[in-house]
Amino acid sequence: MKTATIVGAGLAGSLWAVYLAKAGYNVTIFERRSDIRLAEIQAGKSINLALSHRGWEALRAVGVDHHVNELAIPMTGRIMHSATGELTAQPYGQEGQAIYSVSRGGLNAKMMDVAEKEFGATINYNMQCTGGNLEEGIVYLTNKLTGEHSEHQSDLVFGCDGAYSALRYKAFQKLDRFNYSQEFVEDGYKEFLIPANADGSYKLDKNALHIWPRGRFMLIALANEDGSFTCTLFMPFEGDENAFDKINTKAEIEAFFETRFPDFYEMCPNVVEQWGTHPLSSLAIMRCYPWTSGKAALMGDAAHATVPFYGQGMNASLEDCHTMGKLMEEHDHDWEAIFKAYQADRKPNGDAVQELSKHNYLVMRDFVADPQFLLQKKFENRIQELYPEKYIALYSMVSFSSIPYAEAWKKGQEQDVYMKDLMQQHDIESLMKEGKVDDLIHRIFKDKLVSN
Amino acid sequence: MKTATIVGAGLAGSLWAVYLAKAGYNVTIFERRSDIRLAEIQAGKSINLALSHRGWEALRAVGVDHHVNELAIPMTGRIMHSATGELTAQPYGQEGQAIYSVSRGGLNAKMMDVAEKEFGATINYNMQCTGGNLEEGIVYLTNKLTGEHSEHQSDLVFGCDGAYSALRYKAFQKLDRFNYSQEFVEDGYKEFLIPANADGSYKLDKNALHIWPRGRFMLIALANEDGSFTCTLFMPFEGDENAFDKINTKAEIEAFFETRFPDFYEMCPNVVEQWGTHPLSSLAIMRCYPWTSGKAALMGDAAHATVPFYGQGMNASLEDCHTMGKLMEEHDHDWEAIFKAYQADRKPNGDAVQELSKHNYLVMRDFVADPQFLLQKKFENRIQELYPEKYIALYSMVSFSSIPYAEAWKKGQEQDVYMKDLMQQHDIESLMKEGKVDDLIHRIFKDKLVSN
Ligand SMILES: Cc1cc2nc3c(=O)[nH]c(=O)nc-3n(C[C@H](O)[C@H](O)[C@H](O)COP(=O)(O)OP(=O)(O)OC[C@H]3O[C@@H](n4cnc5c(N)ncnc54)[C@H](O)[C@@H]3O)c2cc1C
Ligand SMILES: Cc1cc2nc3c(=O)[nH]c(=O)nc-3n(C[C@H](O)[C@H](O)[C@H](O)COP(=O)(O)OP(=O)(O)OC[C@H]3O[C@@H](n4cnc5c(N)ncnc54)[C@H](O)[C@@H]3O)c2cc1C
Repeated sequence: MKTATIVGAGLAGSLWAVYLAKAGYNVTIFERRSDIRLAEIQAGKSINLALSHRGWEALRAVGVDHHVNELAIPMTGRIMHSATGELTAQPYGQEGQAIYSVSRGGLNAKMMDVAEKEFGATINYNMQCTGGNLEEGIVYLTNKLTGEHSEHQSDLVFGCDGAYSALRYKAFQKLDRFNYSQEFVEDGYKEFLIPANADGSYKLDKNALHIWPRGRFMLIALANEDGSFTCTLFMPFEGDENAFDKINTKAEIEAFFETRFPDFYEMCPNVVEQWGTHPLSSLAIMRCYPWTSGKAALMGDAAHATVPFYGQGMNASLEDCHTMGKLMEEHDHDWEAIFKAYQADRKPNGDAVQELSKHNYLVMRDFVADPQFLLQKKFENRIQELYPEKYIALYSMVSFSSIPYAEAWKKGQEQDVYMKDLMQQHDIESLMKEGKVDDLIHRIFKDKLVSN
Repeated sequence: MKTATIVGAGLAGSLWAVYLAKAGYNVTIFERRSDIRLAEIQAGKSINLALSHRGWEALRAVGVDHHVNELAIPMTGRIMHSATGELTAQPYGQEGQAIYSVSRGGLNAKMMDVAEKEFGATINYNMQCTGGNLEEGIVYLTNKLTGEHSEHQSDLVFGCDGAYSALRYKAFQKLDRFNYSQEFVEDGYKEFLIPANADGSYKLDKNALHIWPRGRFMLIALANEDGSFTCTLFMPFEGDENAFDKINTKAEIEAFFETRFPDFYEMCPNVVEQWGTHPLSSLAIMRCYPWTSGKAALMGDAAHATVPFYGQGMNASLEDCHTMGKLMEEHDHDWEAIFKAYQADRKPNGDAVQELSKHNYLVMRDFVADPQFLLQKKFENRIQELYPEKYIALYSMVSFSSIPYAEAWKKGQEQDVYMKDLMQQHDIESLMKEGKVDDLIHRIFKDKLVSN
């Protein structure tokens, strides 16, 4: 039986453990934190992430999606909150399509349970990776409770230790000709909790992702299972106004929320207290290549961490597992071939998910409040309803399909040019009002060939 | 008296020590290698670099240029070697302008001598920096001979430890929001020595930089003081042919040089032996920001390592010292202000020298063998001769002026568009042959305003 070591029992590491254990590998995981399953219960709160098609497919492939169903709250669209409190809804896709608010801890804990109990993987907590020898398949470790140093050797090593991966920093980055970049964006984020009503009900529609788009900054909210919402404020660290460095006193914090996010402010009366106690965090895009060397590979955020504006970081990480799993079968456990195919397939998609994420920041901050953008979305939705095999909007390609990110990004850019052009040539708004837009769509798309 | 620590006694570190010591600082240098002055003599060979205007100015500002004069061999232009051994000369600038082939070790050793003997700086050899605390001004050290660990605290810390800077990797890279990238180009390099003739004379014109441009690969040669030439072959690591991974056997090496560089092959009969014993090295562009934090700053290659194709890496590094030195006086030793001004001034120039270096690779590999390019150069030279205050060619801005790199790069691109346009409108070649090109130049430039 082959042995495999996974560094990091986060979202990628815990699912990848299931894949490997299921395929018969002897899996050992080293995780820096203490057991998340105990920690979660103690803290009594969870942070939710948007899980979409690619993530579900990766879970489904090893038959663990049903465990996650229970945790998942469908979000069928965005609800935009204007500065005066008006709401505008916008569906994400077609009838029945949704992305899902899922507890990060819940999903993580479930995968660890399955890997451990169903397939006999071993998880070691409080074990921090401090480096590795990629050729030999060795990881160096420090026990965070005892300070003891040790090393662990195996046939395969997977660095699933997140955006600040120690395996990447301490081993890959020292390889000759290893390309690497860490790029911090100008914005940071701070999380806030909108509590549930006294009766446990939600203060906002739980089946939507809420956005307060404000141009250079924005607030978003996703429902948690317990009736609360986890909200995230994205804003520049420094600036003339509406920047983290300009909002410090109680009066400044209150004024900021009262004027910019009045409806949120009402639902979150202790925002000043939360501002003071919740950390201000930074956001980075990490790029590197190669992703594999000797007996080791990087997966998930360790290989391609991105900014969270498309809600695809975890989905891309889970899709890494899905792809590596398929390649494992295709190449019949010949790991030299698997690693080669893995990085050739996934690197362009990692780059693309980063481009998509940067692009969607503009969409969320700006465009969703722009009537032209909303009109285009509506028009695209209608095209997609009438000719689903001939037109898939970018958001749908990314969130509701398995079309490789790189292909989606390329096609999405082409489509955007095409759409803008169509909208210049035709007064879509009037056509919609007059109920004539379908005629136009039929005229254009009826005889159009499927583009791919 | 303020204390300053310099990590790395390379080209930037040793000159910066002179600046600081001269300004009255108590300077301590930690250098990983053993004393280069002893090592140089033992090895009996030196590698030469092209020193140009900016480097000279930086030496002049602290009055040490006369020490370097003795070591410097002027190169007034390029000599291109064709595949059939024909030579074409091309001047770098105007009459009297030259770049200089200077011994890296000689320059380095001289600066160390001056810092130590004239100004009382302390240099500690075999001391490897292993990290630092930027806020506290501490560097962590390992004595390479004894293995002993120690730390050293001072008012100021300068990371001059080169492209693979330990201070950058171990301290700066861990800062929150530190942007960093290491980008390896597809090409590697290998050095060869053309020995002097038996009587000590040079086998090639020593007052030129020799280039064998071959499109996707090239060879260059700079004269050493002892009659030899140090040559560098730049070529892709991997490729279908003319790539390092395709040239392995004695027969392949010989065939490669015989067909691609016949005249070189004749002057370097033991090239096969040299191929086997000289290392194949990689080339990287390192970018980062910020360059300063707390009590520490990065200088030279540690801040902005580039590919060597403009011969500006050292010049840019010495210019860092020059600028920091000026700012030290301007801000009267207020280091918070100095550091702020330093990185604001130098970062765009570091980026620009990297762009220039990448661009010049194309020039050296390809364009210098292109008649259109050579014609444009000739035309530009003539314009510059007639209207020196109105036109400075890009190469001259970079190599013979102190115009900031960023400005030179921007202007150079604009000028190139302008020149290409002029050359489309007029048949410069015929005008030159007919002796009429000056008339054209007068017509265009006489009433032209100086552009900056
Ligand atoms: C604010 C925010 C919102 C986001 N929202 C979404 C979203 O809605 N949808 C989405 O798809 N993605 C989202 N993401 C991205 C998502 O969180 C990541 O892409 C995902 O967590 C990556 O999974 P991973 O397993 O690669 O890394 P992680 O989940 O970070 O797991 C890494 C694991 O490795 C462990 N570890 C780290 N270092 C060591 C070490 N030295 N030794 C041992 N163990 C170590 C860590 O403790 C952790 O358990 C968001 C990210 C942020 C920051
Ligand atoms: C092939 C090639 C050709 C080049 N040709 C030219 C040219 O013609 N013209 C030109 O201007 N530039 C040229 N350059 C670039 C030039 O060599 C560099 O820009 C220059 O050396 C940078 O100086 P520096 O002092 O910053 O770094 P370095 O000269 O690299 O000095 C760094 C010093 O720090 C020491 N050090 C490293 N790590 C540690 C540590 N952990 N602890 C203590 N000490 C440490 C090193 O031993 C070294 O002494 C060339 C470079 C290459 C690779």
